[in-house]
Amino acid sequence: MTQSLSRLISQGRGDTPADLVLRGGVVWDMVTGSKIGGDVAICGDTIVGIGVDYEGERVIDVTGQTLVPGFIDTHLHIESSLVTPHEFDRCVGPRGVTTAICDPHEIANVIGVAGIEYFLDCALETVMDIRVNLSSCVPSSHMETAGAQIEAPDLVPLMDHPQVIGLAEFMNYPGVIFQDPGCMAKLEAFRGRHIDGHCPQLVGRDLNAYIAAGIRTEHEATTADEAREKLQKGMRVLIREGSVSKDMHALQPLLNDVTSAYMCLCTDDRNPLDISEHGHLDYMIRELIRLGCPPLAVYRAASLSAAEAFGLKDRGQIAPGKRADIVVLDDIAECRATLVLSGGVVMDEAAFAARTVTPPVGRGSVKIGTIRADHFRTGGNRRRTDVIGIIPGKIITEHLHETIPITDGDKRPDLARDLIKIAVVERHGINGNIATGFVKGFGLKAGAIASTVCHDHHNIAVVGADYSDMAMAANRLGDLQGGFVVVRDGAVLAELSLPVAGLMSDRPFEEVHESLIALRTAAGSLGVTLEEPLLQLAFLALPVIPALKITDRGMVDVEKFEIIPG
Amino acid sequence: MTQSLSRLISQGRGDTPADLVLRGGVVWDMVTGSKIGGDVAICGDTIVGIGVDYEGERVIDVTGQTLVPGFIDTHLHIESSLVTPHEFDRCVGPRGVTTAICDPHEIANVIGVAGIEYFLDCALETVMDIRVNLSSCVPSSHMETAGAQIEAPDLVPLMDHPQVIGLAEFMNYPGVIFQDPGCMAKLEAFRGRHIDGHCPQLVGRDLNAYIAAGIRTEHEATTADEAREKLQKGMRVLIREGSVSKDMHALQPLLNDVTSAYMCLCTDDRNPLDISEHGHLDYMIRELIRLGCPPLAVYRAASLSAAEAFGLKDRGQIAPGKRADIVVLDDIAECRATLVLSGGVVMDEAAFAARTVTPPVGRGSVKIGTIRADHFRTGGNRRRTDVIGIIPGKIITEHLHETIPITDGDKRPDLARDLIKIAVVERHGINGNIATGFVKGFGLKAGAIASTVCHDHHNIAVVGADYSDMAMAANRLGDLQGGFVVVRDGAVLAELSLPVAGLMSDRPFEEVHESLIALRTAAGSLGVTLEEPLLQLAFLALPVIPALKITDRGMVDVEKFEIIPG
Repeated sequence: MTQSLSRLISQGRGDTPADLVLRGGVVWDMVTGSKIGGDVAICGDTIVGIGVDYEGERVIDVTGQTLVPGFIDTHLHIESSLVTPHEFDRCVGPRGVTTAICDPHEIANVIGVAGIEYFLDCALETVMDIRVNLSSCVPSSHMETAGAQIEAPDLVPLMDHPQVIGLAEFMNYPGVIFQDPGCMAKLEAFRGRHIDGHCPQLVGRDLNAYIAAGIRTEHEATTADEAREKLQKGMRVLIREGSVSKDMHALQPLLNDVTSAYMCLCTDDRNPLDISEHGHLDYMIRELIRLGCPPLAVYRAASLSAAEAFGLKDRGQIAPGKRADIVVLDDIAECRATLVLSGGVVMDEAAFAARTVTPPVGRGSVKIGTIRADHFRTGGNRRRTDVIGIIPGKIITEHLHETIPITDGDKRPDLARDLIKIAVVERHGINGNIATGFVKGFGLKAGAIASTVCHDHHNIAVVGADYSDMAMAANRLGDLQGGFVVVRDGAVLAELSLPVAGLMSDRPFEEVHESLIALRTAAGSLGVTLEEPLLQLAFLALPVIPALKITDRGMVDVEKFEIIPG
Repeated sequence: MTQSLSRLISQGRGDTPADLVLRGGVVWDMVTGSKIGGDVAICGDTIVGIGVDYEGERVIDVTGQTLVPGFIDTHLHIESSLVTPHEFDRCVGPRGVTTAICDPHEIANVIGVAGIEYFLDCALETVMDIRVNLSSCVPSSHMETAGAQIEAPDLVPLMDHPQVIGLAEFMNYPGVIFQDPGCMAKLEAFRGRHIDGHCPQLVGRDLNAYIAAGIRTEHEATTADEAREKLQKGMRVLIREGSVSKDMHALQPLLNDVTSAYMCLCTDDRNPLDISEHGHLDYMIRELIRLGCPPLAVYRAASLSAAEAFGLKDRGQIAPGKRADIVVLDDIAECRATLVLSGGVVMDEAAFAARTVTPPVGRGSVKIGTIRADHFRTGGNRRRTDVIGIIPGKIITEHLHETIPITDGDKRPDLARDLIKIAVVERHGINGNIATGFVKGFGLKAGAIASTVCHDHHNIAVVGADYSDMAMAANRLGDLQGGFVVVRDGAVLAELSLPVAGLMSDRPFEEVHESLIALRTAAGSLGVTLEEPLLQLAFLALPVIPALKITDRGMVDVEKFEIIPG
């Protein structure tokens, strides 16, 4: 799609008509904050002129509207939208997202480099510009069984792909500061290139060491103090508002005209329910403005600052020579796009229908034997029991201790104390591991909920009050090739099949949305009080987020970075 | 000098003592504006920790002082300092300049690619980090005779040199917007890479077209309105305060907390007199603060914004993982460095003495025959005469018209009207061209002044009231292998030899400074009223700066981009 220089210059001068002209609006300049009248002239995928009149082969009337640069999601896992990259494109593009910088580490944990290559292939076909940071930590740590393991030599051949920016979130922060050889090899291979960070609650000298290793961004800060220290130490801080991890309210006091050039927005993991009911980056923009952030700072963080942080010098401003990524708005505070252009293409159903769609990969990825109720018994002889304490809306957890009696050689759920059973079942056909433990905070009083979306190894995570229902839920996921299921009294109440690596649907996002509503209702019928139980469940197995997690190998004390002896 | 990752991490964590610790100061953070206490730990050339205590193999006490990031001069011709890159390093480094992004187009106009290669060799040896943008317009236009011509294929082999950023100021802006094939080949070769701009007074569609060609920065704006339009159209605007072109006062109203991330500082052409008497970037910082710019905005423009604009992700902030480029100040408003570190090296005489010095090139570059008084006669039969009108402190000129009688077939100087003769003598041994014309504004009443510093072709420029003195001055420059000379009544009043390509001295900057004082005094004795007559003279031959200039081929109407018929 790259235009010839000659066409760009000729159309920019008005010597020949522009391919496309947006007429009648004002451009809101992210550098000075000015509103600039005049036409916007576009040649192919590139803006060639603003501020004056132009003739165009095609003219779109945007009278009375405000034009802002396309939004850039600076860190996300598209898999968390539960749809394929092509469907994600159709889902969030019309909301103004024209660049998505993704880390395909969910699919990479299931099928390895082939999953990254699938995303790179998709990225060449979508209307939005999908950029890829290469998954740095597959698996996230040595304390889990993933479907694949990716080392530095696997990533090096991909580093110069046109859609690749650098290395994705370096989650194994202990591996950095304690100089694990595999981590060091990856850092060394990408030295001088972009490397995304991920270091929740790291401070002081440890944070200094982590950043000194060449890591440039951070999206795990959950308090303004934490984010401020990271900004001051040179990290670009990405304010995250996912479906589970919601940091926007805590970090918004930091976002102002002084800092906005160095802050970005990201969604990390955002599901179709949230996208449909609240929005995507458009929701973050609305909400940040409502919370009192200066509107210019908010839109800048969503566009220009993001482009600068990731070295995308070709976008982030509605200006000559930049990609024609433009969001047309009736109202800045409302941020509801009436028209979106990505690379000069209007993001409408015709554009989506015209794409070449890359066939999905990773079918048949759920490889388990028959799971039985007794697999969920928890033995041991210590009554003092480590319990994962849910914090609603956070992926960090509390490390609780409860006294749980041992009955018939098993520690059983205690619904009066909201202590239910959690298990992780290895599902990549590698070792058949099953680990069990306890979690508090779901409110579940009956049945079971299970998921193959289970960060980052994506084994089966199942919680329940009843072992038979837990077994049925896990086995049903095998039949579905992955997905979500809610079971009660031996019956499936709701389910969603995610046959693409057990992570993504092959259906339109609208259908996925409908299924999730049914699943949420079903979970509620079990007594679950969490707003997003499936997403909250999905992060209980991620052993690089404090404080207590569970993998197929057992309960993990993240602060000690070790598996708790059974 | 690149440190091993392992050492960076170990020293950052404090597992081993840092190579160097700065203790007792506060770090002024350019992102948030906070002042941060604690030590600064440095491992080799890299900062590895701030904000906490560190042990160090070596400790420097900076108690009570403020530490700011090293200053970045975003566009300059080191040749204009009249000393070699090594001597420039010694001259301005201790003032806080730790990165200089230079365009060696002065020497390239004399000796071609060999001049660029000399700078690249020097850049690997200096204490400061000299980065090179490759000279894009040698010669600056087709209306002059330079010593060399550089085309796209000459530059491509240099584009991946570690010190090269991209393509330097694209001065031939008519060549861009009218799509000259040689210009297009250069733009095409560097497409997607950094390209510096240079487009004085370009506005509207022409400016759009110029920027759409991929050009990212601008340093020729002389009014706030001009700079604002360029900022709004996506250019990073470099506020320039050279010895002749002084735009700081005009542009400072634009520099504030909202815009500072997108503005930089540069000196372009600054001579040893100014550096010694006023300062370099340190002078700009002091003055901008005095004029009322927010101090954070000023220091940010001098460091972090410059780093970002040029893709130098490894510097611009005193933070882990960044180059240890640090300026220690007693007082922010005064900006007088008490200590400067560049890449962890204290910029003191010991460090300068320890450098390997690259031998200068370009000796014997002044190749002229004997110049006679009658060479300066101006024929023609039109009494209405185009006259260059000097604007003190600007490199743009006025295009004046005066009626000058023809006496004995010659138009003669008219000192009552301050109309003196100007000539450009080709000195590269190519064609022996001599062009003459008139200039108004020097105040010169006797004698002659001549120079081989004569942008950008660096032929001999000579002004005078007396043809014999003009001839003597030109011939003396041949003897000196280039330089400056002031002559009166057949005697040399003052001179400076610049044997390195006729542009740079081979002597220490202090000696050059002394010679310039003598030259200034001598020029004053001729009646010259300009503050910097030699520098002002040096730009009268640059045909890419409006409005009227002179080259060896004749008077140039820059707005029409054509030579005025004789």
